[in-house]
Amino acid sequence: MANKELEEGTELLIDFAKRGGLIPAVVQDVADGRILMVAYVNELALEASLSKRMATFWSTSRNALWTKGETSGDFLKIVEVLLDCDQDAIIYRVIPQGGGSCHTKDPETGKTRETCFYRKIDLESKKLQMV
Amino acid sequence: MANKELEEGTELLIDFAKRGGLIPAVVQDVADGRILMVAYVNELALEASLSKRMATFWSTSRNALWTKGETSGDFLKIVEVLLDCDQDAIIYRVIPQGGGSCHTKDPETGKTRETCFYRKIDLESKKLQMV
Repeated sequence: MANKELEEGTELLIDFAKRGGLIPAVVQDVADGRILMVAYVNELALEASLSKRMATFWSTSRNALWTKGETSGDFLKIVEVLLDCDQDAIIYRVIPQGGGSCHTKDPETGKTRETCFYRKIDLESKKLQMV
Repeated sequence: MANKELEEGTELLIDFAKRGGLIPAVVQDVADGRILMVAYVNELALEASLSKRMATFWSTSRNALWTKGETSGDFLKIVEVLLDCDQDAIIYRVIPQGGGSCHTKDPETGKTRETCFYRKIDLESKKLQMV
């Protein structure tokens, strides 16, 4: 496939097969730009996301279509879907519908964490710190 | 490995082997929260990023360590590195040092694009549109 078509064209040409069936999907909160989670989509999951307008992924652990919020109620409503130059990564820009996006809970508050990225790597010690 | 240790601990326990050697690295501009690119890191690339403080990846096409900006001058200076709950995705929060982050150029201005995510998927037509 010509790079120009891939990079400058108006056609959705994601080559899932070339990527082992999956590409990463980054979920970003439209309100504040925070990155909430990173998961994977296959063609089916992307298709479901575009039609349902709720962030849907392919669960690599369960090998199943996974609409975030199905069990927790914490749906991620899709506002827009961005695609990168090489058409091998996407961003779901979302409005969270529930209390959080992560499957973990803050031990202090007992609440579901809003983002999966609640820790940073200290650049000196390489230990993890809460953000 | 216990989930608690992985999710709540202070030790960096990324299991690269379990992930085929690579995990996705999302690059985010600290100034405005924009997502600039998504690439992959192996253990070597993450190590290099933490020590050089410049976003470094593993190029899956060239099978080589790749410090963004080496050839273009468009280095991405690392401010912080975030890690997710499962320790299988990272965010480089950066200050771009050059003109852009993408390898493509805007045909109108001839300038390197600031982000790889310059298109969105129209939710109705599924055609791509410039953001």
